[in-house]
Amino acid sequence: MKLPDNIVFSDNIEKDLGEFLSERNYSQIAVLADENTVKYCFPLIEKALPQHTLIVIESGEEQKNIDTCMRIWGALTDAAFDRKSLLINLGGGVIGDMGGFCASTYKRGIDFVNIPTTLLAQVDASIGGKLGVDFNKYKNHIGLFRNPEKVFLDARFFDTLSDTEKRSGFAEIIKHCLIRDAEKFDELTKTPYEKLNLAELTRHSVEIKNAVVAEDPTEKGLRKILNFGHTVGHAIESYYLDKPGKKLLHGEAVAIGMICEAWLSMKKLPFSHEELERVTAYILSIYGHRPIPGQDIDEIIKLVKQDKKNEGDKINCSLLHRIGDCTFDIKIENRDAASSIEYYNSTTGIK
Amino acid sequence: MKLPDNIVFSDNIEKDLGEFLSERNYSQIAVLADENTVKYCFPLIEKALPQHTLIVIESGEEQKNIDTCMRIWGALTDAAFDRKSLLINLGGGVIGDMGGFCASTYKRGIDFVNIPTTLLAQVDASIGGKLGVDFNKYKNHIGLFRNPEKVFLDARFFDTLSDTEKRSGFAEIIKHCLIRDAEKFDELTKTPYEKLNLAELTRHSVEIKNAVVAEDPTEKGLRKILNFGHTVGHAIESYYLDKPGKKLLHGEAVAIGMICEAWLSMKKLPFSHEELERVTAYILSIYGHRPIPGQDIDEIIKLVKQDKKNEGDKINCSLLHRIGDCTFDIKIENRDAASSIEYYNSTTGIK
Repeated sequence: MKLPDNIVFSDNIEKDLGEFLSERNYSQIAVLADENTVKYCFPLIEKALPQHTLIVIESGEEQKNIDTCMRIWGALTDAAFDRKSLLINLGGGVIGDMGGFCASTYKRGIDFVNIPTTLLAQVDASIGGKLGVDFNKYKNHIGLFRNPEKVFLDARFFDTLSDTEKRSGFAEIIKHCLIRDAEKFDELTKTPYEKLNLAELTRHSVEIKNAVVAEDPTEKGLRKILNFGHTVGHAIESYYLDKPGKKLLHGEAVAIGMICEAWLSMKKLPFSHEELERVTAYILSIYGHRPIPGQDIDEIIKLVKQDKKNEGDKINCSLLHRIGDCTFDIKIENRDAASSIEYYNSTTGIK
Repeated sequence: MKLPDNIVFSDNIEKDLGEFLSERNYSQIAVLADENTVKYCFPLIEKALPQHTLIVIESGEEQKNIDTCMRIWGALTDAAFDRKSLLINLGGGVIGDMGGFCASTYKRGIDFVNIPTTLLAQVDASIGGKLGVDFNKYKNHIGLFRNPEKVFLDARFFDTLSDTEKRSGFAEIIKHCLIRDAEKFDELTKTPYEKLNLAELTRHSVEIKNAVVAEDPTEKGLRKILNFGHTVGHAIESYYLDKPGKKLLHGEAVAIGMICEAWLSMKKLPFSHEELERVTAYILSIYGHRPIPGQDIDEIIKLVKQDKKNEGDKINCSLLHRIGDCTFDIKIENRDAASSIEYYNSTTGIK
């Protein structure tokens, strides 16, 4: 499958980035990183860089907000970056989404390059041009669409990740199989998690996401299928974001969300009970089970209602016809969303 | 000259806006206004509106910042605006630029309509899709390019303006003549200011600006000629923004900037001394003379150097070959910019 020119699968990022920079004539270069990526990932690209400004922010979704944007805009301003300068975003989804947003709005837009360093960012944030930050409790509430000049994907960055982080990214790989490739989902379920080839699966995910996004770049229709698992998943993630000790990684929340929305698929579409059990069992085998206390559900549903895909008072969901075939704009009620979380809570015994 | 479909010269805005809204099916509508436009301009459109949310902010360039954006985004969020909602920006350039920026980034972009109520906003901000807010002392430092769904231009709003505000807007009309229409500039200089037909001149300005922007929407080249008078003018405006009692309106600063940059045109290009005197005399006849104290000039030059059009260490200026013919990317030095302000200071006797 043909990928866009701005996507580069690299096994020598130092060389590839260096070549890109020498082709372009950027007036100044900044690298946006967090305390982890500056330590573990920056050494892999440092030699490719001419003189540059390093902007280091604290890691974590809590930093993905307008206040941090103000710091990034401020750093670019202080270093007198002009319109022909470049921002390189080195990190996970937070760095890529927020850095891309800051670059796209600094002096009405400077170029940016994304170097996603997490599995999640490589399989998800690397394609599709969705940029932005959270606002109050709402994920990616402020943002825009714009593509990086280049995205360099290098599997060696996965060695810098914890198992939990890798598992979080893997949720999007499962999602891409569930919405578009039943055969690949079969393959996943038949291979022990530890034996999976993440580099190959990354390419598979990027191809699927790219094919979907190419048909509908600004999410008027088809692109919404990429939100499978995210309507409930995002709300769960947002709700626990500021609850000490209860925070979930994005993929962990999406894993729960996919189980909830597989149940909703069964309720609203021909998706079968057998398929629901297959999906549930596979996801639980990777992520385990983590019940959602009944008293949290109402608050989570309030967040579901703020989802960007909704229209008016209805919740818009992307749901599965069958494994490998997803559709969008299925209207559900508050009580359906609540019941789907109750279903998840009941699945503790499914194997 | 053909204007884009989104520009509507209206002599019955209530009817035209009402028709537009009934053609579209917006889920919710908000109107962004300030304490003046809500009082004097909102009555002209109120009857066209179905149920709507009114967001009123304080007027003034000092409000054009990210903090105010946070309030606007917050108001849209609190009213649970979805992606199919609309923001109507009713006011001058601050309201249009900032409201457009907020709409373009709320949930990655909702539609917006601009109803510019000042002469300045009608002749300048109504065309070209430049959106954004100031950052620290830098004008329009954070923003992006995006066009409104519609811009309604109604000359009746001019009746709500003070003479000072009208004069401020008129500076952009002078600019459009200086950069592209020598004949029209002649006509201006031969007509007493009070006798000018502002509605007709607005259309003339919009046509010129549109023709320039259509050739170069994202300001890679030609569009920069619209910045004539603004390199020095913006810096003067920014410098006095927070000096009590010394604040200048945008057009007042641009009027000074045009005299400075006419002088720079003479210094760097074939622009003649006679033309310089003609331009200077005409502008002074409208705006009077307001010397810039020597001790302010250094600080103003520092702001000139932060202009978005600059590259690296050089100041990029748009200058006149002759009246009616402007070019761009003319490099000037700090001391040239300073000398141009000194020239302005020396013009007090020119008539």
